[in-house]
Amino acid sequence: MIDLWYTENHQEDTRFSIKVKEHLHSEKSPFQQIDFFESDTFGRFFTLDGLMMVTQKDEFIYHDMITHIPMAVNPSIKRVLIIGGGDGGTAREILRYNHIEKVDMVEIDERVVRLCQQYLPQTACQLDQDPRLTLYFEDGLKFVQEANDEIYDLILVDSTDPIGPGEGLFTYDFYNNCKRVLSDAGILINQHESPYYESYAHEMKRAHSKIKATFPIAKVYQFHMPTYPSGHWLFGFASKKYDPLADLQKEAWMNFGLRTRYYNTDLHMGAFMLPTYVKESLENA
Amino acid sequence: MIDLWYTENHQEDTRFSIKVKEHLHSEKSPFQQIDFFESDTFGRFFTLDGLMMVTQKDEFIYHDMITHIPMAVNPSIKRVLIIGGGDGGTAREILRYNHIEKVDMVEIDERVVRLCQQYLPQTACQLDQDPRLTLYFEDGLKFVQEANDEIYDLILVDSTDPIGPGEGLFTYDFYNNCKRVLSDAGILINQHESPYYESYAHEMKRAHSKIKATFPIAKVYQFHMPTYPSGHWLFGFASKKYDPLADLQKEAWMNFGLRTRYYNTDLHMGAFMLPTYVKESLENA
Repeated sequence: MIDLWYTENHQEDTRFSIKVKEHLHSEKSPFQQIDFFESDTFGRFFTLDGLMMVTQKDEFIYHDMITHIPMAVNPSIKRVLIIGGGDGGTAREILRYNHIEKVDMVEIDERVVRLCQQYLPQTACQLDQDPRLTLYFEDGLKFVQEANDEIYDLILVDSTDPIGPGEGLFTYDFYNNCKRVLSDAGILINQHESPYYESYAHEMKRAHSKIKATFPIAKVYQFHMPTYPSGHWLFGFASKKYDPLADLQKEAWMNFGLRTRYYNTDLHMGAFMLPTYVKESLENA
Repeated sequence: MIDLWYTENHQEDTRFSIKVKEHLHSEKSPFQQIDFFESDTFGRFFTLDGLMMVTQKDEFIYHDMITHIPMAVNPSIKRVLIIGGGDGGTAREILRYNHIEKVDMVEIDERVVRLCQQYLPQTACQLDQDPRLTLYFEDGLKFVQEANDEIYDLILVDSTDPIGPGEGLFTYDFYNNCKRVLSDAGILINQHESPYYESYAHEMKRAHSKIKATFPIAKVYQFHMPTYPSGHWLFGFASKKYDPLADLQKEAWMNFGLRTRYYNTDLHMGAFMLPTYVKESLENA
């Protein structure tokens, strides 16, 4: 039997490897290298430019944490913009809220969406199902530059790292436009890298310093994402008026009656309680 | 230059690898295979039977979380028993509390202690320095079986996995004896494995079902330990009367004036807020 391993270098001298049962698909889109794999422990997974994006085993962690945190702070959110998130998991989770009226999803690479529809229906299942969702295959930075003022209540930035196609989503220009297109009650959640390995911690600090210069409220929360470098991953929570802890609406969220495998309203509080070295690193950013 | 990598199989089909600058030491003790390595990202690290124990980069996380959680719940703890912990990091942290009167440390394998003193002074620094500490090179299970009633306020089980020398530390016999030798105010902290990979989750559940059958209060808390399988690791908190959240003594702990890089009293609360799938897995254990 063939002995095939996928390996990601988490640092130059640190590697994470998964034995591959089948290399299902490989192609170079205009934006990036896209690969789909089949494995035992993680089920199907896909990578962009060789970096792990989504596995069947733990995508629920990432998608729970990007969507339910803001929905529990402002349960009245109705108009949502997703930037990136081509696998569809973020859209799937947010569309579970029946009162959401409109979701615009802006993914730069149509091939990611089409391939996830083919190979990862677990995450992509809602992408051609729900009439509230509109897909735009465009650059996210350009999209927010051209969008009208105050037309969204929530922006979810489900992006790759700030190298390659995701780069523009870590700029002042992008964050300022997010602020402009968000309503007064608006919340921005962004992929915030990781505090552990130096190269990721550097990007975490850069992102945080820009977001806290843009939004009156800018916090960071953590979760366990075992297939990402170090397994210690962060999202940013920024808003014009809502504090993610003081304004948490526990009962309102529980009344939605959503079953979640990672998120719960106690964990919501806990996720914002950061280790001292992470807090200090963000304060000095 | 030689291309040398240390690899741990986190599952049969999942590997974590670190590039090794130098294989400093390798020996087979009467109990296990012991190896010390030098690396760039993690500094020095050592393994037992090929499994990662301690790295210079992130040992502070593990040692903060095993010691400061119980000390912040009962700041009057004076008599401590450490089972395992041959690297010395747990002893080092607990001995930072000046009011601690006595620490007995029971490590089955003297070679681990001697080699850590030679290669890992960062963790082993207090093992021959502090007169309050007594080292016993014995089996931890046998030690608690023979110890007198109610002579400790805190037991810290800093053990390997429940295979090999650590096996006896995951039994009813051990937990019952821990309960017996603990004072009425006593707390037991134990290495509680991980919820993510199935084989570790299985051991997590086995340990929890025994501990909750033994102690009136039995909770579990989590932390980010990137060099352990999945990076999502747990300790158990068991006691006769203290609840780790309701009885947290924030101010008393802060008055100790200890500088910690991972632990803080907010994180203390957050660490007990578990993901839904972990909570359910423990409830059904």
